[in-house]
Amino acid sequence: MSGVLYGVGVGPGDPELMTLRAARLIGGAAVVAYPTLAGGASFARSIAAGLIAAGTEEIVIDVPMSVDRAPAQAAYDDGAARIAAVLDEGRDVVCLCEGDPFFYGSFMYLHARLVSRFKVEVVPGVTSVTACAARAAMPLAARNERVTILPGPLPETELRDRIAGAESVVIMKLGRHLGKIRAVLDDLGLAGQAMYVARATLADEVVCPLAEAPEVAPYFSMILLTKGADPWL
Amino acid sequence: MSGVLYGVGVGPGDPELMTLRAARLIGGAAVVAYPTLAGGASFARSIAAGLIAAGTEEIVIDVPMSVDRAPAQAAYDDGAARIAAVLDEGRDVVCLCEGDPFFYGSFMYLHARLVSRFKVEVVPGVTSVTACAARAAMPLAARNERVTILPGPLPETELRDRIAGAESVVIMKLGRHLGKIRAVLDDLGLAGQAMYVARATLADEVVCPLAEAPEVAPYFSMILLTKGADPWL
Repeated sequence: MSGVLYGVGVGPGDPELMTLRAARLIGGAAVVAYPTLAGGASFARSIAAGLIAAGTEEIVIDVPMSVDRAPAQAAYDDGAARIAAVLDEGRDVVCLCEGDPFFYGSFMYLHARLVSRFKVEVVPGVTSVTACAARAAMPLAARNERVTILPGPLPETELRDRIAGAESVVIMKLGRHLGKIRAVLDDLGLAGQAMYVARATLADEVVCPLAEAPEVAPYFSMILLTKGADPWL
Repeated sequence: MSGVLYGVGVGPGDPELMTLRAARLIGGAAVVAYPTLAGGASFARSIAAGLIAAGTEEIVIDVPMSVDRAPAQAAYDDGAARIAAVLDEGRDVVCLCEGDPFFYGSFMYLHARLVSRFKVEVVPGVTSVTACAARAAMPLAARNERVTILPGPLPETELRDRIAGAESVVIMKLGRHLGKIRAVLDDLGLAGQAMYVARATLADEVVCPLAEAPEVAPYFSMILLTKGADPWL
C-alpha cells in the first residue's frame, strides 16, 4: 500500500487561521514537504512551524528563480520523485501550501506529477482573498454580484479591460507591478475606492487606502476594489 | 466597554474545515447568532454544533423568503438590535457564517448595521470555491490566470458574455438555474470540461461531470470550469 499525499492549505499567515484538519495532519506528519524559492525560507513552513513535531522528515523543493521554465520544472520533477519514494514506502507525505493548494499554489505542480500514481487528498485553506477582505473590513460580494480575481503581472491593457467590466475586483501579487496597476485604476477613476492590504493577518500587516500604499509592494499583497457590495440596509 | 461582534466563517461544511480561531471563538462563546431562512435549520449552526457549549445563548435571525426586500431588511434590523443589546451589556457575540463572512455571506447585512457602533472582527473561513476545487481535484488557477466567480441567478446573456471572456470560471448558487447555465455552456462548447459539485465536504457530497448532474441542483452547489490550469509539467 502506497502512502497518501496530502496537499494542505495552511491559510494566509496567522497560524490560527489553519483549519482543524490541517493542524491535525501537520501535527501527525512523519514527513512534510514544501517548496522554497531560490534558497529562501518557506512561508508555508513558517505558518505551520509550531505544529511540526521534532524529528519530522522535511522534503525541501528548492525552486530556482529564472525566466526560463525548465530549471523550475526540473526542481518540481526532482521534488516529486523524492515524495514518490516516500509514498512508495507506504508512508504519507503532508505538503504545506500557503493559502489554498489549488488557488495560485505551487502544490498543483506536484499534484500534476503525482496524481496518476498515488492517492492525493487536497485540504482547502483560507485564501488571502477573504483574509484581506476581513482585515480591510470590505465585504467582497453579496447576492448576484460578480467577483473577478486578477494577478498583478497581467499586461496593462488586459488589466484595464478586465477591471472596467467588473464588479468586485481582487488584484493579487502586486510586487513591482503596483505602479502599473495604480496608473490603470487612476485612469479608470477607481483608485479612490481601492484598498491596499499587504501580509494580511501577520504581525507586519499593512491595510490602507491605495493612495497611502508604498511605491513597491511585497509579493504577498493585494488591492481590493468593491463597487460597494450593497449592504442592503 | 461594549462587547465585540465576531463574524466567524465556519467553512464549507465539514466541521474539521473550521479554522482553529473559529473553533476557539465558538467554543468559548456565551452568545452565538445566526440567520435562518423561513424557519428552516441553520447550515452554519449545524457545522459548528459540536463546539457550541450547553447553555450558550442563541440569537436566531429568521429571514422570511420574499421577492420584496423589506421583510428581510426588517428581520436583519431586528436581529442587529438584539445583537446590539448584548454588545451594549459588554458581552461578545459570535455570529456563525457558512464559508466566509464576506463572500456571499449574510453577515455583511449585520456588519453594515453594527460596524459604526461596535468593534467588529471578521474571521475568514474556507470558501466553498476552494473546497469544491479540492473535492473535484481541479486546480483553480496558477501563475497569471484569471478567476471569474459568477452567481448562477445572473441573466443568461450576462452569464454567456462573462464566461466567454473568462479563464477559470466558478458558477455558484445553481439551484433552479442549472438548466439555464447548462444551455449557456453547451452553446459555448464548454459543457464537456465542466464539473458539478454539490454539498462539498459533506456526507451527501456529489462530484461529477456536468453531463451527469441532476436536472435541479441544491442551492449549495457549483460548476467549475478551468481551461485546464496549466499544470506546468
